Amino acid sequence: MKEIQGGITSVQGIKSSGIHCGIKDMGKDLALITSETIAEAAGVFTTNRVRSASVRLCSENLKKGKGCNGIIINSGNANACTKDGYLNAQEMVKLAAAYLDIPFESILIASTGVIGLPLPMERLRNGIPELIRNLSTSGGMDAAEAILTTDKEPKFSAVEYETDEKAIRIGGIAKGSGMIYPKMATMLSFLVTDVSIDKDILQYALEESVKRSFNMITVDGDTSTNDTVLCLANGLAGNKRITDMDDNMAMFMEGVDYVTQDLAKKIVQDGEGATKFIEVCVKGAMTSGDAEKIAFSIANSNLVKTAFFGESPNWGRIMSAAGISGVEFDVEKIDIYFNEEKVVEGGVGIGRNNAEGIKKTLKQRDITITIDLCMGEKRTSVWTSDLSYDYIRINADYKT
Amino acid sequence: MKEIQGGITSVQGIKSSGIHCGIKDMGKDLALITSETIAEAAGVFTTNRVRSASVRLCSENLKKGKGCNGIIINSGNANACTKDGYLNAQEMVKLAAAYLDIPFESILIASTGVIGLPLPMERLRNGIPELIRNLSTSGGMDAAEAILTTDKEPKFSAVEYETDEKAIRIGGIAKGSGMIYPKMATMLSFLVTDVSIDKDILQYALEESVKRSFNMITVDGDTSTNDTVLCLANGLAGNKRITDMDDNMAMFMEGVDYVTQDLAKKIVQDGEGATKFIEVCVKGAMTSGDAEKIAFSIANSNLVKTAFFGESPNWGRIMSAAGISGVEFDVEKIDIYFNEEKVVEGGVGIGRNNAEGIKKTLKQRDITITIDLCMGEKRTSVWTSDLSYDYIRINADYKT
Repeated sequence: MKEIQGGITSVQGIKSSGIHCGIKDMGKDLALITSETIAEAAGVFTTNRVRSASVRLCSENLKKGKGCNGIIINSGNANACTKDGYLNAQEMVKLAAAYLDIPFESILIASTGVIGLPLPMERLRNGIPELIRNLSTSGGMDAAEAILTTDKEPKFSAVEYETDEKAIRIGGIAKGSGMIYPKMATMLSFLVTDVSIDKDILQYALEESVKRSFNMITVDGDTSTNDTVLCLANGLAGNKRITDMDDNMAMFMEGVDYVTQDLAKKIVQDGEGATKFIEVCVKGAMTSGDAEKIAFSIANSNLVKTAFFGESPNWGRIMSAAGISGVEFDVEKIDIYFNEEKVVEGGVGIGRNNAEGIKKTLKQRDITITIDLCMGEKRTSVWTSDLSYDYIRINADYKT
Repeated sequence: MKEIQGGITSVQGIKSSGIHCGIKDMGKDLALITSETIAEAAGVFTTNRVRSASVRLCSENLKKGKGCNGIIINSGNANACTKDGYLNAQEMVKLAAAYLDIPFESILIASTGVIGLPLPMERLRNGIPELIRNLSTSGGMDAAEAILTTDKEPKFSAVEYETDEKAIRIGGIAKGSGMIYPKMATMLSFLVTDVSIDKDILQYALEESVKRSFNMITVDGDTSTNDTVLCLANGLAGNKRITDMDDNMAMFMEGVDYVTQDLAKKIVQDGEGATKFIEVCVKGAMTSGDAEKIAFSIANSNLVKTAFFGESPNWGRIMSAAGISGVEFDVEKIDIYFNEEKVVEGGVGIGRNNAEGIKKTLKQRDITITIDLCMGEKRTSVWTSDLSYDYIRINADYKT
């Protein structure tokens, strides 16, 4: 498993492009990813009751199971809660299909941005032909840029591994946003691979990998109107087709996990206003579910997150957040560490013995909070960021 | 039911005091409330798994059912997660009981402040005698001040009503804090009344009233290590004792609700960094539970709260927060109002028709967001504040 350059366009048969068509005032806002051959496609969508028209159309086309030749994505507008949203999504897909000369059903779609404003269709009608003219095997970065909203950096990742003496590549791009209360942050990610694999197996691999990556930064089941993760597999690597849970499938899943976890961490690192990357590791739990509940209760606490922004050793807020998770535990058994520094032993603060070491730890950018319940064998980690002034600035100014 | 001056010390037989004994660097940090005669006592405590030693001792003394002559409260230190917390709480109560010459069991206790630091007992040993010397029938405001942490204003309230030709008074003080993610904000409130009432009925009245007030600003069941609401009823009004759910009980409950709701709203108005007072009113729901879930999902959303700080008409975030509440509803039926201004009709934004009116509404300090699901008859309101730069400043600086 080795990391490679080139993002999504490092994968055989994949072209992409990203342009500014005028949905946003500035910056790229329209992206296209195509596969030279029809690809198997898999998708995971938001579970929010309110779903954007783009999500609805995308999941319909995916369900038809005709495979996929392309994904069109716009940023700057969520295409949600507007009168003609569904018609507009259809027109975007229709235009892309017509210019690419492929069937309507083979195009998937995603949108992100402000809810409630109609898509500026005249700009999209002019933008789509230009978008297609710009398609290129080196266009991975353009697409990575064009799907962003308040992100500061494009997020991309790619790996290569060998199977049957064939090189398999997996690439991906992602778009994140505010990590403070992740359940409302739009998250988009598009993966492509040249592996040959059955559709159902691909869907299984994607769902499992999302649980271990994007769902470790986003509370499971609590998502925005637009969250979408898609994966295309075009088979051009020429490997023996993966049709079962064999060793080849295990290697593929390892590759997918590498890319999704890399992208998930990059989303957190670029969280709105983030100055810290925080891993919350809960161990010694009776069940994985318990560990997850406590980890998310801590990772979602504004009081914990502001304390880390202030580099304050406020482990009391961590104890309190654990206490409201709904999980039964013995307060008298809990140990807490900031990186290697023990700050709580048996439920009691011992940080004053090592104030200097802890102060130094809290000044670092990457901090792992470990909570050991000392009850069982189960553990989990979730990733989050701190909560800073810039989060407020970004979100108070992000107007409809 | 008329509002009266004087807070808790407007009630017959109640004295109180508040002093600076040195737990905090500055400001009053120790309070005492006493009743001249032994009072019936009721209490509601945090459901957090991690409970401060003061909460544990208080609920034990309350359970003994011997009635109550006094409540001692310190701010600046939560007396939670420390080695000798329980012994220290016992010593505080012992000293107060000794100087007041009443039994140990008749004193209740509460604490609020930083978790994990030991109580500075030498300061408390010197402070308690002074605290008792300062007891006075005009000391209501001193106690109201001494229970605060990051609050800017003391919070007090009192009402009077007549029953059996007797004047009944109910007074209360409260202490709030960060309202952004209310589940970790310490909330203390102490009510006193001169009504004559049975203990069990008093407990019932308090529990019900908390549901309609403090729990409408604090997610039910999700509370800090220290949350405590106590009510003393000393019977000095001389009314016919309330022993049942009759008309006199109904009037008493109305009075208690008046005081608890007044205090709850004052807590929100003084939320850390708050610049807006926001009522989230969900109506047209099939069940009260549904209305509550949606209201809290919106009221707890950082994205919604920052939008109001920015005076941005971002109703899309409200739709999205409603969508993740777990409640089933028809997106196509939803109407949303900011005060009187309709911004969403049938799930679609119509704000552009009245941009000026909406802009003006968002500049006001008090804003009611009404979400009409147009499905049933049930409704609820919860209260919250916006999320500002000052929230971050206050919480990043609040060091252990």
